[in-house]
Amino acid sequence: MSHKVLILNGPNLNLLGTRQPEVYGRQTLADIEGACARQAAALGLQADFRQSNVEGELVTWVQEARAGHAAIIVNAAAYTHTSVALMDALLACDLPVIEVHLSNIHRREAFRHHSYVSKAALGMICGLGAHGYELALAAVARLLNTTVEA
Amino acid sequence: MSHKVLILNGPNLNLLGTRQPEVYGRQTLADIEGACARQAAALGLQADFRQSNVEGELVTWVQEARAGHAAIIVNAAAYTHTSVALMDALLACDLPVIEVHLSNIHRREAFRHHSYVSKAALGMICGLGAHGYELALAAVARLLNTTVEA
Amino acid sequence: MSHKVLILNGPNLNLLGTRQPEVYGRQTLADIEGACARQAAALGLQADFRQSNVEGELVTWVQEARAGHAAIIVNAAAYTHTSVALMDALLACDLPVIEVHLSNIHRREAFRHHSYVSKAALGMICGLGAHGYELALAAVARLLNTTVEA
Amino acid sequence: MSHKVLILNGPNLNLLGTRQPEVYGRQTLADIEGACARQAAALGLQADFRQSNVEGELVTWVQEARAGHAAIIVNAAAYTHTSVALMDALLACDLPVIEVHLSNIHRREAFRHHSYVSKAALGMICGLGAHGYELALAAVARLLNTTVEA
Amino acid sequence: MSHKVLILNGPNLNLLGTRQPEVYGRQTLADIEGACARQAAALGLQADFRQSNVEGELVTWVQEARAGHAAIIVNAAAYTHTSVALMDALLACDLPVIEVHLSNIHRREAFRHHSYVSKAALGMICGLGAHGYELALAAVARLLNTTVEA
Amino acid sequence: MSHKVLILNGPNLNLLGTRQPEVYGRQTLADIEGACARQAAALGLQADFRQSNVEGELVTWVQEARAGHAAIIVNAAAYTHTSVALMDALLACDLPVIEVHLSNIHRREAFRHHSYVSKAALGMICGLGAHGYELALAAVARLLNTTVEA
Amino acid sequence: MSHKVLILNGPNLNLLGTRQPEVYGRQTLADIEGACARQAAALGLQADFRQSNVEGELVTWVQEARAGHAAIIVNAAAYTHTSVALMDALLACDLPVIEVHLSNIHRREAFRHHSYVSKAALGMICGLGAHGYELALAAVARLLNTTVEA
Amino acid sequence: MSHKVLILNGPNLNLLGTRQPEVYGRQTLADIEGACARQAAALGLQADFRQSNVEGELVTWVQEARAGHAAIIVNAAAYTHTSVALMDALLACDLPVIEVHLSNIHRREAFRHHSYVSKAALGMICGLGAHGYELALAAVARLLNTTVEA
Amino acid sequence: MSHKVLILNGPNLNLLGTRQPEVYGRQTLADIEGACARQAAALGLQADFRQSNVEGELVTWVQEARAGHAAIIVNAAAYTHTSVALMDALLACDLPVIEVHLSNIHRREAFRHHSYVSKAALGMICGLGAHGYELALAAVARLLNTTVEA
Amino acid sequence: MSHKVLILNGPNLNLLGTRQPEVYGRQTLADIEGACARQAAALGLQADFRQSNVEGELVTWVQEARAGHAAIIVNAAAYTHTSVALMDALLACDLPVIEVHLSNIHRREAFRHHSYVSKAALGMICGLGAHGYELALAAVARLLNTTVEA
Amino acid sequence: MSHKVLILNGPNLNLLGTRQPEVYGRQTLADIEGACARQAAALGLQADFRQSNVEGELVTWVQEARAGHAAIIVNAAAYTHTSVALMDALLACDLPVIEVHLSNIHRREAFRHHSYVSKAALGMICGLGAHGYELALAAVARLLNTTVEA
Amino acid sequence: MSHKVLILNGPNLNLLGTRQPEVYGRQTLADIEGACARQAAALGLQADFRQSNVEGELVTWVQEARAGHAAIIVNAAAYTHTSVALMDALLACDLPVIEVHLSNIHRREAFRHHSYVSKAALGMICGLGAHGYELALAAVARLLNTTVEA
Repeated sequence: MSHKVLILNGPNLNLLGTRQPEVYGRQTLADIEGACARQAAALGLQADFRQSNVEGELVTWVQEARAGHAAIIVNAAAYTHTSVALMDALLACDLPVIEVHLSNIHRREAFRHHSYVSKAALGMICGLGAHGYELALAAVARLLNTTVEA
Repeated sequence: MSHKVLILNGPNLNLLGTRQPEVYGRQTLADIEGACARQAAALGLQADFRQSNVEGELVTWVQEARAGHAAIIVNAAAYTHTSVALMDALLACDLPVIEVHLSNIHRREAFRHHSYVSKAALGMICGLGAHGYELALAAVARLLNTTVEA
Repeated sequence: MSHKVLILNGPNLNLLGTRQPEVYGRQTLADIEGACARQAAALGLQADFRQSNVEGELVTWVQEARAGHAAIIVNAAAYTHTSVALMDALLACDLPVIEVHLSNIHRREAFRHHSYVSKAALGMICGLGAHGYELALAAVARLLNTTVEA
Repeated sequence: MSHKVLILNGPNLNLLGTRQPEVYGRQTLADIEGACARQAAALGLQADFRQSNVEGELVTWVQEARAGHAAIIVNAAAYTHTSVALMDALLACDLPVIEVHLSNIHRREAFRHHSYVSKAALGMICGLGAHGYELALAAVARLLNTTVEA
Repeated sequence: MSHKVLILNGPNLNLLGTRQPEVYGRQTLADIEGACARQAAALGLQADFRQSNVEGELVTWVQEARAGHAAIIVNAAAYTHTSVALMDALLACDLPVIEVHLSNIHRREAFRHHSYVSKAALGMICGLGAHGYELALAAVARLLNTTVEA
Repeated sequence: MSHKVLILNGPNLNLLGTRQPEVYGRQTLADIEGACARQAAALGLQADFRQSNVEGELVTWVQEARAGHAAIIVNAAAYTHTSVALMDALLACDLPVIEVHLSNIHRREAFRHHSYVSKAALGMICGLGAHGYELALAAVARLLNTTVEA
Repeated sequence: MSHKVLILNGPNLNLLGTRQPEVYGRQTLADIEGACARQAAALGLQADFRQSNVEGELVTWVQEARAGHAAIIVNAAAYTHTSVALMDALLACDLPVIEVHLSNIHRREAFRHHSYVSKAALGMICGLGAHGYELALAAVARLLNTTVEA
Repeated sequence: MSHKVLILNGPNLNLLGTRQPEVYGRQTLADIEGACARQAAALGLQADFRQSNVEGELVTWVQEARAGHAAIIVNAAAYTHTSVALMDALLACDLPVIEVHLSNIHRREAFRHHSYVSKAALGMICGLGAHGYELALAAVARLLNTTVEA
Repeated sequence: MSHKVLILNGPNLNLLGTRQPEVYGRQTLADIEGACARQAAALGLQADFRQSNVEGELVTWVQEARAGHAAIIVNAAAYTHTSVALMDALLACDLPVIEVHLSNIHRREAFRHHSYVSKAALGMICGLGAHGYELALAAVARLLNTTVEA
Repeated sequence: MSHKVLILNGPNLNLLGTRQPEVYGRQTLADIEGACARQAAALGLQADFRQSNVEGELVTWVQEARAGHAAIIVNAAAYTHTSVALMDALLACDLPVIEVHLSNIHRREAFRHHSYVSKAALGMICGLGAHGYELALAAVARLLNTTVEA
Repeated sequence: MSHKVLILNGPNLNLLGTRQPEVYGRQTLADIEGACARQAAALGLQADFRQSNVEGELVTWVQEARAGHAAIIVNAAAYTHTSVALMDALLACDLPVIEVHLSNIHRREAFRHHSYVSKAALGMICGLGAHGYELALAAVARLLNTTVEA
Repeated sequence: MSHKVLILNGPNLNLLGTRQPEVYGRQTLADIEGACARQAAALGLQADFRQSNVEGELVTWVQEARAGHAAIIVNAAAYTHTSVALMDALLACDLPVIEVHLSNIHRREAFRHHSYVSKAALGMICGLGAHGYELALAAVARLLNTTVEA
């Protein structure tokens, strides 16, 4: 059976494609979900794609992921920079975590340079737009195979 | 038809009139809602007045405002100082935003001097108590007329 | 009739006993709830024990506590360090507040040294594991008796 | 007899309408003076409108206002951020003070985020252009009535 | 034979009850010593209660405690914030250490928020007045029993 | 002939006695001028006592003092903390300078702890109210005698 | 003809596989070069793989890349954090730049959190070991196709 | 007709030649005025040379320069580091501005390293003594020719 | 009977007159003690003059002063900048405290600009050498008379 | 024989004229070298014009300049902000040093505001484009004449 | 007669060999004293080896060393980082001072990176364990010979 | 066969003896090389003494040392404070490293207080001039013997 990967999206990402396209591009979140589903299938993975504006709901989803998921890809958007709760949940979940950002957060406002999520993530991919999700799925696939083989 | 203005109130503002009256005054939130309704009517506007303690709910309300509101007046209370998510939602909503605070936040604790909401607001009115909401409505009326006429 | 004490637990504390036991110990939150119930009974108090991952829900519970509770014991976990909203609610509730942490937050990462909750608390007990809750209940008992007698 | 309100304008505001209109708008200071006069009359107030480039002159005007004015509205421009002397004068004058800025100072250079004037002001209105002066007059009118009635 | 607990008190605590009672309460240090003796006896412990104004003397007492004491309870008062030497001694003594403060140091001046003692302590109890010493003794009793049993 | 001492007073000191008496005392600047005249006479000195709200005027007076004065006593009030120009003038004047403050500036707001004037002053007397001026005159007398004798 | 991609490696990366394998893994730089060659071929690209310990040499290679390369992938190692010169060269080269790091630099020492390279890079991939280079090549392939098609 | 260049000199520069010659040299301000007049004549320019100790007067002169001057050379002395008002005036004047300092301000006290004037200046010349004024005039001549020709 | 004034001297002041005379002058501590005795007698006071290198001993002397002294003059030397314990003792003693320093601490190394003693002192006299002690005695005399009369 | 002046150019200046012309202008480094040669000849000097991307090579050239050059003009580009080694070499070379920058570094990113080179330079000329080099040569000529004559 | 060298040891060094051997090694202070005595004898010096936990006692010993010692070697342990008093004593003693630390203080907690002792020391030897004392004695021997011969 | 010790010298140390002798002494680098050769021979070691102005060359030498050297003594001069690359090379080389500085870097400019080299060094010797190299060789000899014996 294929591994299930939780792909978490934080606040305002539901607006993608309609908001500040010069920063975030023109793809909608549904477009990204579709691309993730296709890429996951190609890699023998299953994408469980969700979005919430509520910090506590994201925390709860991370907690529940321990039961049936093999990895987490997380674009926490604004909560990247403010949520110790999300970091604590990711640290506690014992799953490989990959952080994704559509834009290069190191070139934006100073408060976006710091990420609590990074403290709980294996790695980060940023600045590559929606393609970053697909690369993160590729990274997950590599990691899970490694685990099986090694 | 009159413009609808979303008037958002953040955490603990539902306690108004009962909590630290030497800081926030003796008016309840219902009193303010009534005054806003009267002032809006006098200005040919319609006040849509809400309060929530949940950051994500405020974010969602801002997102939805793009569909049917002409402006947002926001007193984000504690989230003023901590919510990048609310700032991002306000930046994305493409509506004129006016920030209101009952007290003069520049004279309180240092962590209340910084406002994420300000980065997304046209202007701020603070320290004038409940009257600040009415002035914000007057500013909205002026802005909307200007837009029509200019 | 015995006093009711609200015992609030913040995000991820529902994972206790399964997560990073070298930091938080092996007791589950249910174990702690049981110990609190027994200790409260022994002290002539009643423990109202709750947990939430949602900041706004914790805020609302604090607001409601004014109606029927005599004191609050709060382990806000990650929200300790980020929630001005929770601090404002605690400041507004007019009840004695005691802050508890399982670990000694002063010996962990720098961002955990600062507590917004402390600004609204009478005192803090930290680093003594689940026993800290029982000591906090003892402190509440002493405080409430003092108030009656003095 | 109507209350006299001192409306103080700091350095370079005499250039209004000719300088960086994308920041400060196209109205001249004379335009604003006219609007203030009309608004004051409508509110039963009298506007005493002045401008100076000299910090010490602004200080002296504030000192003298105690004799015959009922309130001060102040747009200190650059001295907002550097003048402890003006703050001290405003603190000493025992009159209600309302701070006004044409632009939203919280969205400009970092050194403009801090205001010494705020430490001496009841409230601040910023980012609403010349309309901010009129709103400040409305606030003064409300305050003075309150004082009489309460 | 009962365990001996060293209870250390730092500079100016000999003034307790006569100095700033609004901050530190009206109990004298002798009152606290008496309460500790009673509480220790009730818990099957023995309280060795001392006070010094000299940093080096406190350091020496901690060093000597390794020979005959089972735990240390320390209210280092002003040296909490300045004494690396005391921290080093506590780190070297290989005994469980519990830090106590009468007031909630997190609500006082900024320089009192940092504690060198915390870096060497299992836990901290603060803001609960003299009762904090008794709670610390209860914590010591629990710790020592645990050690014996587990 | 007796030495002439320039006694400079900065912005808002002309309000003394009427402004915030709990901070600055009830003496007027004229009272202080009188006390200085008497004290100077007693010490064989001559007091040249001035006040200005204008930074540049204070600078010019310091520059001119080189021609006919033997020392400067300066209470620069708000300009203490902001005026590099006054510091430069004092450094250039080649006269002994004594800094005076009515209140203890080290116990007030943080921005009043730093003094540019101190960088150009032999010494500072603060927190002793109007008496500080008299002590400064005594210090000047001692200095000038020393210069003559040594 | 296939696009040539410059893959730059900074100081000490020539030691890979022999140095701190718990941080950097066991692959040698030659292993990575081989993997990049294979991945580039699969994507229709050509990998030009280089390493230098000399900052100025890296700068020169970037300058020369404008003549015949289509993109740059750069793991600047220690120079990431200190080299303004390399950043300036990358900003000047007018090619898409992707930054790669073997480890997650956000979880290492504080001075490794800041990257000058990021200011000149489209995006960053870190923490995914040698696989990060392959993902970067995939990102380059996507970017170059996009440019052609769009 | 020749272009008129305003050459502004800030506080204490009137003392030049008599004050701290080891820092500022032995030339008087009149010497520099003479040298500027000669250099201006040689370049086909006209030097309008002024000095003031009053910040507001410097501001007003800058405002007036828009009417009849072609460029501004400014040595703001102490106001370099403290005057936002002067910076605002220079930004508003729409003339080329060249900043001059006699000494190398980057090698003096830390508070002299920051210049508000720089934010409004095309360029800066410092550390070259009175010769810096002549070089600034040469730069102005080059700029004005460029404007005419290009 | 005359008031007794405790004059406390901190570490290394026993070396006065032999150590760095260019900073501290050539008078020995015995010279200063003599001058204080004479000045005290002239003012109807009694000087109790002491020195210690031990922080805790200074603390104890301050504590004991409450019994028989009317005021404290303190030159805490190095402990000025590091001793929270001494500050706490001075705050607790309920006597008027005047801080003295031989040199102007605001012109020395940065770590000497901050004084814990100042937080507990009515005023400070610094930079006037041994004469500062005499001026402090004069200030004490004025204060004690005032207290009696007012 | 004419004096030889070393004119050093740091990393990426070889790209001049092709890179970000809106910041650095359209002149190539060869254009500037030509202008310097002409200006040097006119002033009776000889220009020795060099560029390197390697920090250590710039250091070595400065060391060697002591043998045959009379002065150094240095535009260290990126190394301005990071090279202590270059600063040390300039401090050691015992020649007059003039720092040049094409753009006004005080108006660019914050990390470009600090210059190590300035600590070793007599003066700085910035923001005047290639003309700055010619002005620096004029300054050198003036300095060398002065040395001869004085 | 041989020179006497004072070798001072600060707080907790009396615990050496029993405390945190992974940081400080297994040698006791008596072992080090023996090694110093042997090394001193070999170098024609005399070692006066002392330890105290009391800051003021260390200060007094330094003061007394001026009478009969030729140099001081000091391992101030915790007082290294907090004692301005010890630094002042060392600065006043007019003897060559060599600072020793067993561990490399630059690799430990941040607050141990700063040393007040260094401001008064000729040099520092750290991280070489007890051998550092012997090397310091060798350095003293070299210094004293140099002084005699040169 | 005797152990070979690499003795690395950073930028500008080739100027020793000719540059700022009041800071660095009058010995040339050749003098120090000679002294090191003699001291190494006396200790049964072999000194491989090198100097470079190029950061990358120093990095490469450190990398190569793993093949045939037993220890490294490094005086990185300016690169001490700026080179993460050198630190990384030293961390990777798996040899004992001793850091040497001629002057006491803790008493010089603030930017010289921090050393990247220290993070990779066993210990540091500074402020003892060229003798520091000899002491470092003695420390190396002790370390290598220890390794053999223990």
